[in-house]
Amino acid sequence: MRPSGRDLSEMRAVSIETGFTKHAEGSCLIKVGATHVLCTATIEDRVPPFIKGSGLGWVTAEYGMLPRATNTRMRREAAAGKQGGRTVEIQRLIGRALRAGVDRVALGERQITVDCDVLQADGGTRCASITGGWVALRLAVNKLMKAGDVISDPLVDPVAAVSCGIYAGQPVLDLDYPEDSEAGVDGNFIMTGSGKLIEVQMSAEGSVFSRDQMNKLMDLAEKGVGELVSAQQAAT
Amino acid sequence: MRPSGRDLSEMRAVSIETGFTKHAEGSCLIKVGATHVLCTATIEDRVPPFIKGSGLGWVTAEYGMLPRATNTRMRREAAAGKQGGRTVEIQRLIGRALRAGVDRVALGERQITVDCDVLQADGGTRCASITGGWVALRLAVNKLMKAGDVISDPLVDPVAAVSCGIYAGQPVLDLDYPEDSEAGVDGNFIMTGSGKLIEVQMSAEGSVFSRDQMNKLMDLAEKGVGELVSAQQAAT
Amino acid sequence: MRPSGRDLSEMRAVSIETGFTKHAEGSCLIKVGATHVLCTATIEDRVPPFIKGSGLGWVTAEYGMLPRATNTRMRREAAAGKQGGRTVEIQRLIGRALRAGVDRVALGERQITVDCDVLQADGGTRCASITGGWVALRLAVNKLMKAGDVISDPLVDPVAAVSCGIYAGQPVLDLDYPEDSEAGVDGNFIMTGSGKLIEVQMSAEGSVFSRDQMNKLMDLAEKGVGELVSAQQAAT
Amino acid sequence: MRPSGRDLSEMRAVSIETGFTKHAEGSCLIKVGATHVLCTATIEDRVPPFIKGSGLGWVTAEYGMLPRATNTRMRREAAAGKQGGRTVEIQRLIGRALRAGVDRVALGERQITVDCDVLQADGGTRCASITGGWVALRLAVNKLMKAGDVISDPLVDPVAAVSCGIYAGQPVLDLDYPEDSEAGVDGNFIMTGSGKLIEVQMSAEGSVFSRDQMNKLMDLAEKGVGELVSAQQAAT
Amino acid sequence: MRPSGRDLSEMRAVSIETGFTKHAEGSCLIKVGATHVLCTATIEDRVPPFIKGSGLGWVTAEYGMLPRATNTRMRREAAAGKQGGRTVEIQRLIGRALRAGVDRVALGERQITVDCDVLQADGGTRCASITGGWVALRLAVNKLMKAGDVISDPLVDPVAAVSCGIYAGQPVLDLDYPEDSEAGVDGNFIMTGSGKLIEVQMSAEGSVFSRDQMNKLMDLAEKGVGELVSAQQAAT
Amino acid sequence: MRPSGRDLSEMRAVSIETGFTKHAEGSCLIKVGATHVLCTATIEDRVPPFIKGSGLGWVTAEYGMLPRATNTRMRREAAAGKQGGRTVEIQRLIGRALRAGVDRVALGERQITVDCDVLQADGGTRCASITGGWVALRLAVNKLMKAGDVISDPLVDPVAAVSCGIYAGQPVLDLDYPEDSEAGVDGNFIMTGSGKLIEVQMSAEGSVFSRDQMNKLMDLAEKGVGELVSAQQAAT
Repeated sequence: MRPSGRDLSEMRAVSIETGFTKHAEGSCLIKVGATHVLCTATIEDRVPPFIKGSGLGWVTAEYGMLPRATNTRMRREAAAGKQGGRTVEIQRLIGRALRAGVDRVALGERQITVDCDVLQADGGTRCASITGGWVALRLAVNKLMKAGDVISDPLVDPVAAVSCGIYAGQPVLDLDYPEDSEAGVDGNFIMTGSGKLIEVQMSAEGSVFSRDQMNKLMDLAEKGVGELVSAQQAAT
Repeated sequence: MRPSGRDLSEMRAVSIETGFTKHAEGSCLIKVGATHVLCTATIEDRVPPFIKGSGLGWVTAEYGMLPRATNTRMRREAAAGKQGGRTVEIQRLIGRALRAGVDRVALGERQITVDCDVLQADGGTRCASITGGWVALRLAVNKLMKAGDVISDPLVDPVAAVSCGIYAGQPVLDLDYPEDSEAGVDGNFIMTGSGKLIEVQMSAEGSVFSRDQMNKLMDLAEKGVGELVSAQQAAT
Repeated sequence: MRPSGRDLSEMRAVSIETGFTKHAEGSCLIKVGATHVLCTATIEDRVPPFIKGSGLGWVTAEYGMLPRATNTRMRREAAAGKQGGRTVEIQRLIGRALRAGVDRVALGERQITVDCDVLQADGGTRCASITGGWVALRLAVNKLMKAGDVISDPLVDPVAAVSCGIYAGQPVLDLDYPEDSEAGVDGNFIMTGSGKLIEVQMSAEGSVFSRDQMNKLMDLAEKGVGELVSAQQAAT
Repeated sequence: MRPSGRDLSEMRAVSIETGFTKHAEGSCLIKVGATHVLCTATIEDRVPPFIKGSGLGWVTAEYGMLPRATNTRMRREAAAGKQGGRTVEIQRLIGRALRAGVDRVALGERQITVDCDVLQADGGTRCASITGGWVALRLAVNKLMKAGDVISDPLVDPVAAVSCGIYAGQPVLDLDYPEDSEAGVDGNFIMTGSGKLIEVQMSAEGSVFSRDQMNKLMDLAEKGVGELVSAQQAAT
Repeated sequence: MRPSGRDLSEMRAVSIETGFTKHAEGSCLIKVGATHVLCTATIEDRVPPFIKGSGLGWVTAEYGMLPRATNTRMRREAAAGKQGGRTVEIQRLIGRALRAGVDRVALGERQITVDCDVLQADGGTRCASITGGWVALRLAVNKLMKAGDVISDPLVDPVAAVSCGIYAGQPVLDLDYPEDSEAGVDGNFIMTGSGKLIEVQMSAEGSVFSRDQMNKLMDLAEKGVGELVSAQQAAT
Repeated sequence: MRPSGRDLSEMRAVSIETGFTKHAEGSCLIKVGATHVLCTATIEDRVPPFIKGSGLGWVTAEYGMLPRATNTRMRREAAAGKQGGRTVEIQRLIGRALRAGVDRVALGERQITVDCDVLQADGGTRCASITGGWVALRLAVNKLMKAGDVISDPLVDPVAAVSCGIYAGQPVLDLDYPEDSEAGVDGNFIMTGSGKLIEVQMSAEGSVFSRDQMNKLMDLAEKGVGELVSAQQAAT
């Protein structure tokens, strides 16, 4: 029934290639099916003004899509002169999600910027960015710990994300683009390795949903995030 | 226990003054406690390019805050030269929420723009904007129907929104600013008059939450939205 | 002869509601007929770089119009990415006008920003902004004096403004929108409570005028400003 | 008493060199003392959308200052990414002023853009731009008439402008920069060759003025504009 | 003598992986040493306004660098709100270079946009973009030919580019970043497979050079481009 | 054979009027045929952040064109809200070129900004800007030396530039606009008074060229630059 032939509760194939670029303190190329995102983590010895002197660290994220990551070429945001509303919304989400797994006291007064750039898109780019972004963050923090710059591990619980939705009347796990563009209801579920919730966003475009449907999507999401966290651990 | 002395499941006082401005096809000033939002609905005989010729209508929203709606003066976005990320995120949410209650075929090929401008802020401005925005939309559509420009009512199910969160360890309904700035977990719940869900956004900043907590917030939200829909109906 | 039935030298009804919003140090909603402007005054303990260390204070203004303050919806300036030429011109004028009534030595090295946001427009928004802006400024300065932060009153002479023009060949006081859009000559007259001139702007669009006509408009303006200053004093 | 040694009612030397650049349909370099402005007029067979199909013509203006036209280098507006408030205000004024002397029916449905670029500034640049801009316009319209593209002369009454102000307590004509930066009150007076008023802008910065003073400045302005119109006629 | 141990006239290792992304009509990941650029070619059935209706095709290019492609993180241009001067200069160069190898009549009235996004930078990114961009263009045109949309091959002579410079007093081929940042003189040489010149840019920063040195760099460039063209042909 | 009737190796008439504006530390109006550029040099006691404290000076340039410097009016860049790609490319070139002739240690920690504004364009504006910009720089540095602010002359070798190209199959010196718009190959050659090369940019648009042609253009350029350096020396 799914265009890809997957079962309702089946994830796409996930691969995470660490060290994809050499300059960043942490980097990986995450592939969730045909969605490919390059994630890099940059450590800087400065924090945003609003926490200067607090002793707390900060984790933030930026998101972008190459113009031809999609089926039709999109206008380059740098050429358009600003980031679109969707981009801004996604990068704020990624930053919030990653911070939920971080002990900012243990991190100390430094900032880690996670850049997520979509090289190829096939649905679920924000979730792949969070999952891959955590890996880049993990690798960067490993460097800090190895160098003795931080003592106790500031990454307290891994963070991963998956989308679920109602496709052709059925709750399905990990929407790809053909499903995503048809689904009347979809959601992004960001959770920790220990099964806690960080952020739940469920949304109906031109449709509505019930609490019962919501609970079924939650069940699928828990399964998916479990598999993603295993993939993260295998990679790092 | 709540700074305002309200019960855990008690909304702030809600008032809706319709016809607050005279030029718009529909307008109201909604007050949810000390949060005051001026909502106007504008009807135009044009639609965005991507639906031109489809026979479908469109509902969109814009959101703004006056510089001194808040305790400290914020920079005027027009002077800054762009809408901030938070503004963009909120106005996209309002538009999606309102469209969920609209039969776009019945509306016909026209656009209604709902402007939500916060005159005074005390937490929950996006929810008040959705609830008040629906009233402005209702009034504007009434004009279309009275004039015979649309035949069957395109507003199929009223839309309202409320925030809930975990404050001092307790699930509470309708966060005001002092609660909102302390709550580790909060959510926005957008529902219809008939009890269906349109959008659920639950988010933890520097914290996590369980499915059990999520369910308790859902219960509170259902109560709150019920009261808001009654207020909408009384006003229109 | 006037669309509103007013006499040639008759102002529209004026009302000033103080304390319209709660966060600002001073605020009012001024209504001059169907022109409604929300004015707030914000006190900050910083001044622009060019007077830092001089001991002098500064008063500045910003102006905006809600998108549907007018008969046809205007594009939101924040969305357009910049303030239009008309907006910039008006807010510079408001700032200059208010400063003319202020003893900047007595004010001390602090800045007061007056925000004038038009909720509903029916001609004369810049004049209403100046008249209402002075009231917001007065209320904010009262707070400073009550707190003992300034000793002698820095507001030396009240400032108010009115428009006059040649409509259907006749000099008329306080143009409303139907008159303003037809008048070949119009002017804005900013004066003090003691009858001094601060700024006179008379302009013909596709027309010219004589010194004699100019003098008649001046006479009307003196009458109008007198009434506005009385309304200011009654309100504060 | 004046820094330049001029009499109270004495203009600076005025020269107008026509044909200063070769591409424009009309051009001149106007020098009013040490204020030098290059004015060009461009004819285009298109009009702004709001008058398309009306048969009426349009005259508009743009204004700029070279970065080192002034004593201290100013930031280039193109590099800053926008025209400043002062620039926008001035170019709107120039356009309005020139249109007052034009019969837009006789001009026919075409647009003339007058560019005024200040090569060297010493006070009064907006007035010199209007006076010189009229000359460029005159030359461009002459070409249209010679080619038979317009039949009756659309330039019905020459337009010129001068500044006056209260300097050291005395009303003086044609302020140069040292006077302008000290004057508590100054004004720009735009008039026609036949002595009619187009625009009067009198403004006090940190000061006030009386109707009597205003009348004295008007007298000076009438004298100055008379001399400027003679210079325009001699040049064209 | 070279930091990498290469001979003076030795290129870095070159690899070209075609089909790196699936949506674009042509794509490759080119690696010149540690410089990695993702190149995609997009075909669109529209041309820029200035050639509409001419029957001629157009090839244009855009260039970008991921924020952490470099040793220190650079600000994302989309976030900065504009493309920097360096970016604009490079993408104009890439477009001009590629067009030199194209028969625009044979291409027909369509546009091909080549996007070059640097995933990892180590000197010579603009040259790698041109060399890889040609491969993406070749693959896209192959599709057009296979589909019968173009009859005769519009790619008349392959285009490739290499940098050379004076490093430590010696002319060297294919500068990497450590050399590039030290070289007083460097140049970019864009040539065709048949040995013709398209563009030569030699530049001294804080230095000068002689015609003799220029000739030596030209000799090196001819060798390098020959090898790059072989790599292009092997890949396509 | 040339539209202007000039010999293949003949420059246009060159004139340099120094002191064209009075505020700048150095200024000239350079005319190369009908190309007229106003160049000013501004000295400031500050340097860009990246060399602060280094003891080195900096020379930078900005370039602009008046809207009607060209045959058809171009949009004003300040109104468009940004400098176009061509402008950015040219001003970076001018800055690099001038710096090549400057001993930045001798200049000391100060910045000289050279503004080149094209009043009238007829081809070769960037070359005229460099040649005239050097004169403005020379005059400004003369002031510094006269005042004893710099001891040894920081201008070590004069810098000038000329364009050459293949027009109608023939190498020609100093392209004017009619030639420039037809030439398949053109180049800009920036050299010093002592015959050294600073920058060579040769480019074919829709064409290619050989090393032999390149050498012939180099020969012409050496002749032209020699004449320009003589004109510079005569003027200063």
